[in-house]
Amino acid sequence: MTDERPVIGDYRWHRPFPTRWHDNDVFGHLNNTIYYAAMDTTVTSWLLGQAGYGMTEVDGDPAVVVSSSCRYVESGAFPDTLVVGLRADRVGTTSIAWGLGLFRQSDERLLAVGTFVHVFVDRATRRPKPVPDAIRERVGRELTADG
Amino acid sequence: MTDERPVIGDYRWHRPFPTRWHDNDVFGHLNNTIYYAAMDTTVTSWLLGQAGYGMTEVDGDPAVVVSSSCRYVESGAFPDTLVVGLRADRVGTTSIAWGLGLFRQSDERLLAVGTFVHVFVDRATRRPKPVPDAIRERVGRELTADG
Amino acid sequence: MTDERPVIGDYRWHRPFPTRWHDNDVFGHLNNTIYYAAMDTTVTSWLLGQAGYGMTEVDGDPAVVVSSSCRYVESGAFPDTLVVGLRADRVGTTSIAWGLGLFRQSDERLLAVGTFVHVFVDRATRRPKPVPDAIRERVGRELTADG
Amino acid sequence: MTDERPVIGDYRWHRPFPTRWHDNDVFGHLNNTIYYAAMDTTVTSWLLGQAGYGMTEVDGDPAVVVSSSCRYVESGAFPDTLVVGLRADRVGTTSIAWGLGLFRQSDERLLAVGTFVHVFVDRATRRPKPVPDAIRERVGRELTADG
Repeated sequence: MTDERPVIGDYRWHRPFPTRWHDNDVFGHLNNTIYYAAMDTTVTSWLLGQAGYGMTEVDGDPAVVVSSSCRYVESGAFPDTLVVGLRADRVGTTSIAWGLGLFRQSDERLLAVGTFVHVFVDRATRRPKPVPDAIRERVGRELTADG
Repeated sequence: MTDERPVIGDYRWHRPFPTRWHDNDVFGHLNNTIYYAAMDTTVTSWLLGQAGYGMTEVDGDPAVVVSSSCRYVESGAFPDTLVVGLRADRVGTTSIAWGLGLFRQSDERLLAVGTFVHVFVDRATRRPKPVPDAIRERVGRELTADG
Repeated sequence: MTDERPVIGDYRWHRPFPTRWHDNDVFGHLNNTIYYAAMDTTVTSWLLGQAGYGMTEVDGDPAVVVSSSCRYVESGAFPDTLVVGLRADRVGTTSIAWGLGLFRQSDERLLAVGTFVHVFVDRATRRPKPVPDAIRERVGRELTADG
Repeated sequence: MTDERPVIGDYRWHRPFPTRWHDNDVFGHLNNTIYYAAMDTTVTSWLLGQAGYGMTEVDGDPAVVVSSSCRYVESGAFPDTLVVGLRADRVGTTSIAWGLGLFRQSDERLLAVGTFVHVFVDRATRRPKPVPDAIRERVGRELTADG
């Protein structure tokens, strides 16, 4: 992971992520796991709500997370609301690599930079299958730099 | 706990509580523990942000939860946003009994009714101490039926 | 809820519940919601593992939590392991009222007392249905005072 | 992150991490964030309990997570207990890079491989400070390949 310091405009889709009291740990800051909850919720929100990958697909072929990472730049804390920026860094045959930036809403300061890689799999065999066309097309239009 | 079915207007203060992807459990609904996270965050938000009971008081005398309860009326699910209504059902010498109603924002349907009881304690001795005057006064003005 | 102070022997089934680092909140104690995670996990463990109410039933008729409560007696904290005691306080036609005691494993001190009420429902209609015979029989034998 | 498939014996310290009912998400598997809770708890347990970096240090100079990552190999699910293996992959002047392997206890199959990087900082200035000697010495003895 590079030292890149993205700004909020480097992401094409944004979603607020309000924090909860117990997101803070003993040190009074968001626990490191919370940034992953923010990324998980953001990617899933886009898939469910924006790309026509509806709740019913939960019973269809799922997208499985095969890797994730986070670089922590600055501490956030309840009652901050975060804004999570989402983009697609790479769309492969069976996978999408998401890039995420987590900012504090009040001052747009960068708190963390993260990645998520989803592989689309067949529900029964658990083997990779091509990214559904509807998602590929929507990602290309809405979440890539040249969309 | 009674069978009461409050409406959103029965509460004097409200706070949105957006859900997260992993608030849903295997059944596709908010896990029962999430309603407590919503209540915990709402009461704490009011104490921290509305009543001048600032973040610094975390190092001062805390309010300790001595009991809580929830009656589940209808299932919510991500991506619902909840609206949590807060009122003070009783203000005692050293305690406050909060009443909470959890509604789905989109249709204001009641999902759950809950209670939280806080006792204010001395940080060092952990013994009950009177409800701070500033809080008592603000609760009376903002969160009680005849406020 | 009464002021009862049960001891560990007042429960007929027990399950350890190790804590996690981020179960602690800013005050350095288990957040109040964690006790519900402990109760939820304990009741579900018994249903899934002990009563032949297998994982497959997740796709069958579920048991829905209709109410829960907790009285907090003493603070626990990571790295404590809790021991959760379970008993059935009442078995009705369509519901079971569970009684739970949460103890610190190292000294068996009571940390909290709780309740959970499950109603068994038909998956399709969401209407109450009788407690399955296998569960009723097993509860009677393993989790009630006169079992 | 490489494609390495470590075995449990590749780690010098191990800690069980029992799962909870609501660690499972809609797909019936541990949500991806849970692996980070397991890693966070394991590293912190070692620091607090094994290395003499006691709870009091919470009020002293903390170790701050600056990055983390996880590669998911196979799905776990409640009621699995995980075993988390810990080693120090690199000890720098002010930082420790931890390597973690997450296995299912029952069959020792690898579920995930992860990393955590801690930087030790001065509480007041938030600037990096040298890894405390006691921790450096203990890491070298207990958690490195040539310890």
